[in-house]
Amino acid sequence: MEERVKFVLDEKEIPTHWYNILADLPEPMPPVLHPATKKPVGPADLAPLFPMELIKQEVSTERWIEIPEEVRDIYKMWRPTILYRAKRLEKALDTPAKVYFKYEGTSPPGSHKPNTAVAQAYYNKKEGIKRITTETGAGQWGSALSFAGACFGIEIKVYMVAVSYHQKPYRRVMMEVWGAKCIPSPSNETKSGRAMLKKDPDCPGSLGLAISEAVEEAVSRDDTHYSLGSVLNHVLLHQTIIGLESKKQMEMAGVYPDIIIGCIGGGSNFAGMYLPFVKDKIDGTKPDLRVINCEPASCPTLTKGPYAYDYGDEAGLTPLLKMYTLGHDFMPPPVHAGGLRYHGMAPIICHLYKLGLVEARAEHQLGTFKAGIDFARSEGIISAPETNHAIRVTIDEALKCKETGESKTILLAHSGHGHVDMAAYEAYLSGKLKDYEYPEAMVKKSLEKLPQV
Amino acid sequence: MEERVKFVLDEKEIPTHWYNILADLPEPMPPVLHPATKKPVGPADLAPLFPMELIKQEVSTERWIEIPEEVRDIYKMWRPTILYRAKRLEKALDTPAKVYFKYEGTSPPGSHKPNTAVAQAYYNKKEGIKRITTETGAGQWGSALSFAGACFGIEIKVYMVAVSYHQKPYRRVMMEVWGAKCIPSPSNETKSGRAMLKKDPDCPGSLGLAISEAVEEAVSRDDTHYSLGSVLNHVLLHQTIIGLESKKQMEMAGVYPDIIIGCIGGGSNFAGMYLPFVKDKIDGTKPDLRVINCEPASCPTLTKGPYAYDYGDEAGLTPLLKMYTLGHDFMPPPVHAGGLRYHGMAPIICHLYKLGLVEARAEHQLGTFKAGIDFARSEGIISAPETNHAIRVTIDEALKCKETGESKTILLAHSGHGHVDMAAYEAYLSGKLKDYEYPEAMVKKSLEKLPQV
Repeated sequence: MEERVKFVLDEKEIPTHWYNILADLPEPMPPVLHPATKKPVGPADLAPLFPMELIKQEVSTERWIEIPEEVRDIYKMWRPTILYRAKRLEKALDTPAKVYFKYEGTSPPGSHKPNTAVAQAYYNKKEGIKRITTETGAGQWGSALSFAGACFGIEIKVYMVAVSYHQKPYRRVMMEVWGAKCIPSPSNETKSGRAMLKKDPDCPGSLGLAISEAVEEAVSRDDTHYSLGSVLNHVLLHQTIIGLESKKQMEMAGVYPDIIIGCIGGGSNFAGMYLPFVKDKIDGTKPDLRVINCEPASCPTLTKGPYAYDYGDEAGLTPLLKMYTLGHDFMPPPVHAGGLRYHGMAPIICHLYKLGLVEARAEHQLGTFKAGIDFARSEGIISAPETNHAIRVTIDEALKCKETGESKTILLAHSGHGHVDMAAYEAYLSGKLKDYEYPEAMVKKSLEKLPQV
Repeated sequence: MEERVKFVLDEKEIPTHWYNILADLPEPMPPVLHPATKKPVGPADLAPLFPMELIKQEVSTERWIEIPEEVRDIYKMWRPTILYRAKRLEKALDTPAKVYFKYEGTSPPGSHKPNTAVAQAYYNKKEGIKRITTETGAGQWGSALSFAGACFGIEIKVYMVAVSYHQKPYRRVMMEVWGAKCIPSPSNETKSGRAMLKKDPDCPGSLGLAISEAVEEAVSRDDTHYSLGSVLNHVLLHQTIIGLESKKQMEMAGVYPDIIIGCIGGGSNFAGMYLPFVKDKIDGTKPDLRVINCEPASCPTLTKGPYAYDYGDEAGLTPLLKMYTLGHDFMPPPVHAGGLRYHGMAPIICHLYKLGLVEARAEHQLGTFKAGIDFARSEGIISAPETNHAIRVTIDEALKCKETGESKTILLAHSGHGHVDMAAYEAYLSGKLKDYEYPEAMVKKSLEKLPQV
C-alpha cells in the first residue's frame, strides 16, 4: 500500500481562532509612528482607512482572536486547504528529505490572498462601508479582494502596478468578472499618480506608488476605506489560518518540520504559515526549527536592506513602520514575480529576523522558473512565479539532504497556482527572460530619502 | 450551525474500478465500421493507434474494470475531487432547488481531462510506446495529456486547433511547461494539414481536422501511438470516476439528483458523470431521473444532427462511428468554448439519446457567459467557457423551480476552471463577443458528404 500523499481536514475543522504572535514575542514590536508628528499612532489616526475591528487587531496582544462565523462560512468554499507530501518530487530529486507542501491554489482566485480579503471585507461591511480601494502587484491581491467584495456586496477599486497590468491582463479580467474596477497605476485619478506620470509618463509603477494612490482616494471619501493585502499585523493574523491548519495536518502525518520555506513580498502568506510554528521556537519547544524567507535577488529587502523606519508607500502617506527597507521610492526591476516587488517587509517578519528567529535568502528569477518547471513535471502543479522562489530553495535544501544523507522534513508554503501567469513561463521557455542584478546604486539613492525619526 | 457545503472523500476512497455502461445497455451499440471495408473493425485494425488494453476496454462488456494501482496513485494528486452544495448560488437565485456541483477544476491542468489522459499514458507506457500524438480544441485535452506524459516519461505532440492556438496561447505554454510539443492545426507536417492549407491558408481549424493530423502521424511511426481525449468508449469509461465519486458524495449529502446537467463536446466529461446514474434509470430504480446534455447553439450536434455513420475526423481516416453528426468536414463557428466545437458525439451518448434515456439542449454563448459570471459572483469559481453552457442550463432549471415552487435536486458536472480562458471573459465583458447562428446551409453541405454505409 502506498503512503498517503494528501492530508485533508474536514470543513468542521477550520480553525475557530487566528493566532496572534504579538502575545508571544520575546521583545515587543517597535511602535508605528505618525508620518507627520513621528509620534506613535493611535486608533483615531487609522480610522479614515480601516474599520475599528481591524485597527484593534493590529495592536491586540490577545493570543487567539476569534474568526467570525460569517468569515468561516466563506472560508468553507475552499478551506481547509490540502497538505501534500511531494513524493514524486522527492523521487525525481532522489533525496532522503521528506517534502510537504501546503497548497493555497484551490481558492477561487488561486492564491492565499482571500484568507485576509474575506475577513477585511467582512469587517468593513459590518461598519457600513460601501467601497474599498486597494493596490495590487501581480494581481493576486486585487483579484482576491474583488472576490471578497462580491461575497459581501462591496464595491472594489484596484490600482494595479502598471507593469503587471500590462503583463498580466488576465488578472484584471478576473477582477472584472467579480465586479470590481481595475486601473493601471500610476493613474491620473490621484495627486500621487499624476505627479509620477509628469515625472515619467512610462513609469512601470510600484506597489509603493499604487498604495499611495489607493490610500489617497480612500481618505478623500467618507463611504470608502482602504485595504492592504500584506505587511500589516492584522493581515498576517488572518493568514495564520494557513499555519494552524498545516500544524494539524503535519500532526496527521506524524511529523514536525525541520525547515519551513516560503516566498515573501510583503510577507503575509509565509508569515501566516510560520508564525504558529515560530511560537514553538520562541517557547523553547522546537529550538532547532529553521524558517527561510525567500525573496527576489533584484528586490532583496531582508538580505540587503537596513532596518529603519520607512513609509509603506511611495508618496509617504502611510504611517512609518520599522522594517527592513530598500527605500520607499525604490522602483524594483520588472521581474515576473510582481507580488514580490515591494521595497519593505511586514514589521513582524523584520522583528523576528532582527531577533535571529528566522532566516532569509535571495534568488534570481531564471533559477526560480527552472525550479517551477521541475515541480510541475513531478508534482503536476504549475506554480505562481512568486511561489517558484520558495520551490527553488526547497529543491536546493532537499538536494543538500541528498549530499549529507539527512532525512530532513521540509514544509513548503505553496501560495498559489500559475495558470494566470503563463506569459511569464512563455518568456522563460522561449529564452526571453533575464535576471536583474541588484540595483545597488538606485537603492542607495532611495535610502538617502529615509525619513528622519 | 450552517449546513455542510463540501462533501469530501478520503484518498483511500478513490474508486477501484471504472463503470462500463456496455454491460447494462437495454440494446447493444451499433458496431464501429472500418473506413474502407465498411465492415465491423477488429482489434488488429486499431493496433497501430492504441495499446491493446485500451482496445479491449473499447469493446468490453465487463461491468467493472479495475483501475491500475499506478493510475490510482497519480489520481491521488487531486482526486477524489470535491462535491459542493451551491448554497450561495441558490440564495442569489432565491430558488427552492438544491444545487450540487462536482468540481474537476482542481486537477493540475484544471479540468476533468487527466482522468483519462493518465490512464491512456499508463497503458501506452506499459506497451513500450515512446511517443503519443493527439489533437486539442480549447487546449484542455492537450494540456492534460502533456501532464500525463510528464508523469510517465512519454513524449507528447499536440495538434491544436488553430483558432484556439491563437486565442488561448496560455494553454500551449502549459503543455510546454509539462514538456510537450504543441503546433497549430492545420499544419504543414501532415498530408491532411497541407491539403487544407492549400485550400484555405487562413483556415481556423477544427477538432476533426486536428484528429486527422494526429492520426496520420501516429500511423506513420512505429514508436508512436495516438490518443483521443473524448468520444470513444474507453475514454468515457475512465471518466466514470467522476460519477462514481459523485454518487458516494450525494449519498453523504443524503440526496439523489432529479436532474443531472453538464456540457458536451465529445461528451466524455458529462457521460463520465452520468453513466453511473443512468444505470439506475435503465434498471428501473430511478425512472424519473433527467439528464440534460448542453451543447453550443452554433454546433448543435444532438439537437440538430442526424443519427448516422460518420468519420471521427475531417479527412476520413478514423473508423466510422454511428453518432449524431453535423458532417465530418463541418467547420464550427469560432465560439470560445473550443472544447465543444466538434461535429460528432460520443456513440454511447448518441445511443442513449436515441433510446430516449437522456435529453439535449443548445445554448448561445452570450447567455452562457452571463451565467458564468453569476456563478463566479456567488460561488467564487470562474468556470471554463465550456462549463458555462451547463451553468446556464442549471440556473434556468433552478429558476423554473422558483416558478413552480419545486425543490428539485440538481447535480451539475463542473468540468473545470476558466483561469486560462480570461481572454474570452474579457471579450464578453467588453461587448466584443457575439452569438453565432446555427450555420444550417454549411451543415447541409457537410451532411451531403456522409459516407455511404
